[in-house]
Formats: sequence, C-alpha cells, structure tokens
Amino acid sequence: MNLKGALNYARTHRSKFVSELKEFLRFPSVSSQPQRRVDVKKCAHWLARHLQSIGLERVQVIPTRGNPIVYATWMRAANRPTVIIYGHYDVLPGEPIAEWRTPPFAPTVKGLDLYARGAADDKGQLFCHVKAVESYLQAAHALPVNVKCIFEGEEEIGSTHLLPFIKRNKRALRADAAVISDTKMPAPGQPAISYAQRGGLRAELEVRRPGHELHSGTFGGAILNPVQAACEIIANLHDENGRVKIPGFYNDVRDWSEKERAYMARSGPSDDKILRDAEARRGWGERGYTLYERTTIRPALTLNGIAGGHYGPGVKGVIPACAVVKLSFRLVPDQDPERIGKLFREHIARITPPGVDVQVKVFSPIEPALVDRKHPAVRAAAFACKKGFGAFPVFLRSGGSIPVVNAFKESLGIPTVLMGFGLPDDRIHAPNEKFHLPNFHRGIETSIWYLSAAASALRRPNFLESPARKDKEWVL
Amino acid sequence: MNLKGALNYARTHRSKFVSELKEFLRFPSVSSQPQRRVDVKKCAHWLARHLQSIGLERVQVIPTRGNPIVYATWMRAANRPTVIIYGHYDVLPGEPIAEWRTPPFAPTVKGLDLYARGAADDKGQLFCHVKAVESYLQAAHALPVNVKCIFEGEEEIGSTHLLPFIKRNKRALRADAAVISDTKMPAPGQPAISYAQRGGLRAELEVRRPGHELHSGTFGGAILNPVQAACEIIANLHDENGRVKIPGFYNDVRDWSEKERAYMARSGPSDDKILRDAEARRGWGERGYTLYERTTIRPALTLNGIAGGHYGPGVKGVIPACAVVKLSFRLVPDQDPERIGKLFREHIARITPPGVDVQVKVFSPIEPALVDRKHPAVRAAAFACKKGFGAFPVFLRSGGSIPVVNAFKESLGIPTVLMGFGLPDDRIHAPNEKFHLPNFHRGIETSIWYLSAAASALRRPNFLESPARKDKEWVL
Repeated sequence: MNLKGALNYARTHRSKFVSELKEFLRFPSVSSQPQRRVDVKKCAHWLARHLQSIGLERVQVIPTRGNPIVYATWMRAANRPTVIIYGHYDVLPGEPIAEWRTPPFAPTVKGLDLYARGAADDKGQLFCHVKAVESYLQAAHALPVNVKCIFEGEEEIGSTHLLPFIKRNKRALRADAAVISDTKMPAPGQPAISYAQRGGLRAELEVRRPGHELHSGTFGGAILNPVQAACEIIANLHDENGRVKIPGFYNDVRDWSEKERAYMARSGPSDDKILRDAEARRGWGERGYTLYERTTIRPALTLNGIAGGHYGPGVKGVIPACAVVKLSFRLVPDQDPERIGKLFREHIARITPPGVDVQVKVFSPIEPALVDRKHPAVRAAAFACKKGFGAFPVFLRSGGSIPVVNAFKESLGIPTVLMGFGLPDDRIHAPNEKFHLPNFHRGIETSIWYLSAAASALRRPNFLESPARKDKEWVL
Repeated sequence: MNLKGALNYARTHRSKFVSELKEFLRFPSVSSQPQRRVDVKKCAHWLARHLQSIGLERVQVIPTRGNPIVYATWMRAANRPTVIIYGHYDVLPGEPIAEWRTPPFAPTVKGLDLYARGAADDKGQLFCHVKAVESYLQAAHALPVNVKCIFEGEEEIGSTHLLPFIKRNKRALRADAAVISDTKMPAPGQPAISYAQRGGLRAELEVRRPGHELHSGTFGGAILNPVQAACEIIANLHDENGRVKIPGFYNDVRDWSEKERAYMARSGPSDDKILRDAEARRGWGERGYTLYERTTIRPALTLNGIAGGHYGPGVKGVIPACAVVKLSFRLVPDQDPERIGKLFREHIARITPPGVDVQVKVFSPIEPALVDRKHPAVRAAAFACKKGFGAFPVFLRSGGSIPVVNAFKESLGIPTVLMGFGLPDDRIHAPNEKFHLPNFHRGIETSIWYLSAAASALRRPNFLESPARKDKEWVL
C-alpha cells in the first residue's frame, strides 16, 4: 500500500523532481578547489533544508575540518532494519570550461539528458534516493525501513574527514546495510550492481632544477631541462607491456580463480564495448588480461596531468625551471595504499636524473573494497532493479573508488549495495557530464522498491536503535 | 667636436633617458600573444613619435601583415658611409607573472638596475643607439655617418615579416654595415662582440587520442594516455649522452678547427662561469664539448613547455585527451632549418606509440649566422667598446638567434656588428628581467663612439644614396 502510494507519488511529480535536481546542480560545490569552499558549504545547507522539507528528521549539517557532512534520519520503523543511504554532494572542477557546450553549473535539459557537472556523479544519483524517501513520506507518511542519510562533501578528494568520522561514531551510525548509487550500468535497459571497487592513491611530483627559467639560446644544450627530466621519469613508470615498473608493485595483487575470471568474462563488458565507451580505437595496458580485467582486478597508474615551462599561447624560448606531474593509482586487493606510496617514492628517487630535485607527495589513500554478491541486501537490490528497470542486474566489478565502502565494512560491519544509475556515456569527470533523465526516474522507483525489499530481506535487524540522540553526542 | 658635444649631452641627460626608457617599457608589446596586438601597435607608434622628436627624418610606421616596422633615417652625411641600426620593440610574455617581484610592465628601478620585461631584450639596448643618435642631433645637429633605423616588432616570433621585407627592398635599405645590440657581455667591466649566432626552428606537438577526457577509475589501465605518450616521445628525443636522437640531425654540423676551438677556449666563458650564470650545479648535454661549445658551435633541442590533462589546483581523476609540447631547436652552420624540420617530422612519426595521433607544427626557421671578426666595422666597434667601457671586447659566439643577421648578409651583403650590453644575470626571457643602468649609459656612449669610428673605418661607402624616396616606394 505504502509502496504503491510512493510509486504513484514519484510518477506524478517527475517534473518537480527534475526542477529540484537542477537547483541542486547549480551549486559549484567543487571540493578540490579551495576557492569553492563557500559554494560547497552553501550546497550542504541547501541540501539539509531540502531533506527537512521532504519530512526527514534530525537533519544536521555536521561540521568537519573540511567540508560538512549532511545527516538526516527517519527512525520510526520500530523493529525494522536500518539502511544507510550514502551519497556525495561535492563535484569535480568544471575545467576545461571551454569544452562544455553549456556551462557546467547551468544545468540544461537537452532531449532526454540533463547536462551539468555532478549530474550523474553524484548529485543526480544521490537524489534518486532522496526522492524515493520523499515519495514514501509524502504519500504514506512512513518508510518501510529506518533510514540514516549520510551525504558528504569530500568524496572526490578521498573522503578525508568522513572516514575518521565513521570510525569515531560507530554506535550512532549502526545499520544493517548501506546503499550507494554512484556507479554505472552498461546500457539504459540493463541495470547493474557493483560488487568490487578499486582502491586508490594520489601522487604529485614537482621536478625542479636550481635557479630561474633560462634563455634557451644562451643555455640550450648545456643545462638539464626539468620538463625533459619529468618526461624521462614518466617514461620509466611503465614497461613496454603496459605493466607498472615500480619494483614490488604487483607483489600483493590477488590472483583470482579461473572460475571468477570466467564469471567476469560472462557478465562483464567485452573489450569492444569498453573501447566504444571510451571512444578509443585500441586498448592499452597489461598483457594477458581483458580490458574489463585491466580496469577492475588489475591495478593501474594514470597520469592525470602535467605542466611545465611555457605552454600558453605564443612562443617563449626558455629552459623551464620546474614541471609538475599529477598521478593517480587504482589499487586492488590485497595492495596496501601506504606500502604502494613507499614503493613509489623509492622508485622515483632511483630514476630521477642527476641535476634535478623531485619532490614527491602521496595522499588520499583508499582501500580496495569487495561486497558479497549473495548477501540478502544485494539480493534485495537485484529484485528492486528488476522492478525499476524491467531487467535483472548484472553483477560487475567497478574500476573506480568510493572510499566509504571499505569504512562501512570495517567500522560498521555492514555490506554496501552499489546500485548505479549512470550510463557509460555520461562523461563523469569530463566536460559535458550528463544524467539520462529516464534513469533518474527509474532510479527513484528502484530505490522505492529497494527500501521495501530491504525491509523483508534484512528481516532481523542487527540491533535495536536506542532513543534519539542529541547533536552534541557526535564525536567530531 | 661633434663627438665631444654628443658625449657631453649624453652625460647631462641620463635621468631623462631613463625616464624615457621606462615609458617605452610600459607597453606590453608581446608579439607572441594575439591579444597584445593593439599594444604592439601602440608601442610602434610611440617609438615613431619618439624618433621624430629627437630629430630623425622620414620616420615611418611601415605596415606588414604582422606587426609594423618602425623606420627612420638621417641621410645628410654626404659621401659618408651608411649604418643600419637594428633593434626590436617586441618582447616575450610576462608569464609566469606570479614570479615577478614587480609587475613586468611597471618598470621599476632598484639600486642600479631597471626591472621590466624587455629591459635588456631589447628595448633598453635598442634605446642605447636611439639616445646616441639623439645626443649627436641635439648637441651638434649632425651625425658622423648616415643612419637607417629598422626597429621591428616580431623578433621574438622569428622576424616573419621583416625578412621578406628586406629581401624585397634591397635597394632602399642599402648600407655599409649594420649594428645590433641584442646580446650580452660576460661582466659589467668586460664588453663583448658576438661573431656567431645559432639559427633556430620552433616546433609544437599535439598528442591526442580519440574521444574525451575519461574517468581514470573506469578506464585506468586499459586506455593509452596521451600525456604518457607525449612523455615517451620526449624521452626519445635525446640519447643518454645528451645527443639529439633524430637520425641525420648532426649530418651537416660543421666541424671547427682545433685552432678555432682553442681560440674559443681562451676567449669564451669556462664551464664554471656558465654554470654560475645558469645557477646550475652541473652541466648537461653532448659529451666531448665544453659548455660554451655546446651552447654555440653545437646544436640543441630544448623543451620549452608541456601541458596536458588536469594540472591546476586540486585533483581530478582523469585520463587526459590531449597533451601539448613546445620545443625549439638551436641550429649551427651548416644545418638547414627546413631539412631539420623534415627530419624531426619523420622521427616523431617513427616514435609515436600506436593509439595516439600527433600533429607536428614546425615554424620560425632562422639560419645560423657568422660575422668576420676582422671586418673594419667590427674593428670600429671594438674601439668604441674600449672607449665606452674602458676595456677591449672579447669576441664571443652567441647561443641565441637574431634572425635578421643572416638577412643583412644575404640580401644586403653587409656584415652586422653584434655589440651587446646585456649582462649574464639580466634574466632575459625569464621573470624579473632587468637592465643594468650603468650599462645603459655606457652603451649610449659606446654607440656615440661607434658612429664616429664607423665614419672612418668604413671610409669608402659601398654606394651613393639616391635622393629621398617616398613611402609608397616600399615593396610591401
């Protein structure tokens, strides 16, 4: 009854939902740019007000040393299980702005797609659950399960403050399962549940020689060039077979059984499909693995960017003084981000040409995460996908990293359902990011089904909730 | 008498000269940035008005398809030789602006130095000759020689339009010798004359894979990274001995006699001196040659800059779509810039990894140039240096390129005296460029002496000037 009412509410409020999502997308809540700090905060407060307005309770903007956590609950389903809904309201920078057909923070609907930075990653997907909760609360004044919403503002920079917050507030955050929509599905008609996430580690190199920029006429041919040195270092990070050349890098990489690899081959995308999604003509990387395997059960080291010397318009005959390189590792079980950071530093020290100094920074470690495909919470999600999208989901490994998944497992002892509504061509992290609006609406219905299914799947809650807690009880 | 009057005028007008130079330096006449086009033009007109005001005649701002040429003459020294004074009023960009202690286009005197972009390269040095001419014309109403001033606005971008202009106006530009101050001297008390210039060629690479920026989680490990490809290409441009790896690159490089190399060792800077000037701890480059030789009689390939992917503040987990590399060759006799461009293109095509496309641009070819150390015009300059700076000049090869030197030789059949007043620590082409003011004033006096000495050294003019020509007679 409640379910039917909620579905009905969702179907009759579609255009309202889209307008609200556009409002949410208008905040340039870029967590990686210090100048956007105020926008991030404004976005958090907007979201909190919105959660309040749809009927969630104990809505709070919890301060951290970084960006705030937006928290809200509905705990009136006595003796029912509790589901954590996680999402992130921070986004990546819009740069390079010039490559957007419409500005990144001026959400624009074209055909069936809504274009904006964060449309798919993750404001749009987060909103699927928010609108599902609204549909229940507005149509039936009750949810089938207890709900704790945790919406953070630092996912794109490694969830620096959320992870310790979870560790310090295990009791207050107790739940039976978590659900996150921040991944993708292979095609509009084919839902997917992700059961593995790669971990990560970010790094920056600053390659510098003593002194200023020099005239390339006066000194060209006699002084080592830090841009050249940086390129030589980078050329030394992979071998000709696409393997990372850092000694010891593969030592702890788990070998998967033939059975698991066969399952992946059956369920996962083909090389052709991945190349089409990437708009690439050919694959690259570690021999002996499919592209799907290379991006999921094998680690990777990616150059995210480089800059040095004069690269703007015009010409400038200089020997640069400095080059900066940004990199990111994607790590797999059982690699330890901290150990990888150490090996990386040692390798860089070994391959740095004499005459330049290299400063190495490593940061934002994320542990790889695995979810049991057979857990009742995952089965409930599979059922919900079938209801929402008309097809059973495929179970996929994901190449990206959602730092919190591992924290939910380690600190709260609960599995996370990764139920993604993004599409391969959504261009997340790139110019012209979009969210497919039919997926938005199906995502909402799937979430409505999921909350209902979770109520019976997680029949025996792990714990009984204590009476409502006060804000001051958070350990910050 | 005229000489004495001119010297006296120069000595009593020093502070006026500095103020005027500051006015000249305030124009951001950056030839390599299209957005500065108007500033370049304004600077040309300011210079023309200034030349008019000091008594030069037939002052013209000659339009080209690029930046205008400022031209002025004084042709009243009947039966005397004619000297071309060349200089350039265009400058390099001020970027990176943040590294300047005072803004690049707000000229500032600190101690004995005047800081501004273009202070030494080349507005300050060009102005030495302008102020010498003014001193004669104001103090004595006559110059000891005929003078043709050619001040261009495209030296920093390869003199694209001046070179064909000279070729097309050989008759109108006839002269007996040219003088250029756009080089440097080893120390404030040690003047220098340059008798060789390296040639040059600029290049740009755009390394691109099909498609957009990609999420490094989703695709990291499976798709070739154009930043990495660019770095691999760059790492393939030099061998481990610092030699350029382009096949055939050294084929036409002239071998110099032991005598010439011994002369260079005696007259030129030591490795230590060059390293001190570069603020470097150690040298780099082609084995078997001193650093002075590596920067003068040996060619070089310099990475001027690189950019690709996300390199701004913050992090962004992307596989970039594109990387841009800027390079410049310095070439020596008897290398042909055109042939080098062809060899470069072929080499890049050979070493480009499959999966990316590289677009190669080569432009701004400059021929290497040599000047006979024993030519009377050069001897006159040596005498003038002795008078202006109190010491005989050393004869040096220069690692840079002034494109017009070769054009004067080939098109007009005249030698160019390269009499430089810059200092090794002037940081030309770099942040905090400066001109040492004592060198400015000594440079003016040296030019006054030179014009007088040239009158007798070049006793027999190569030609007799035809009557004054009209503007429309230029072949544009």
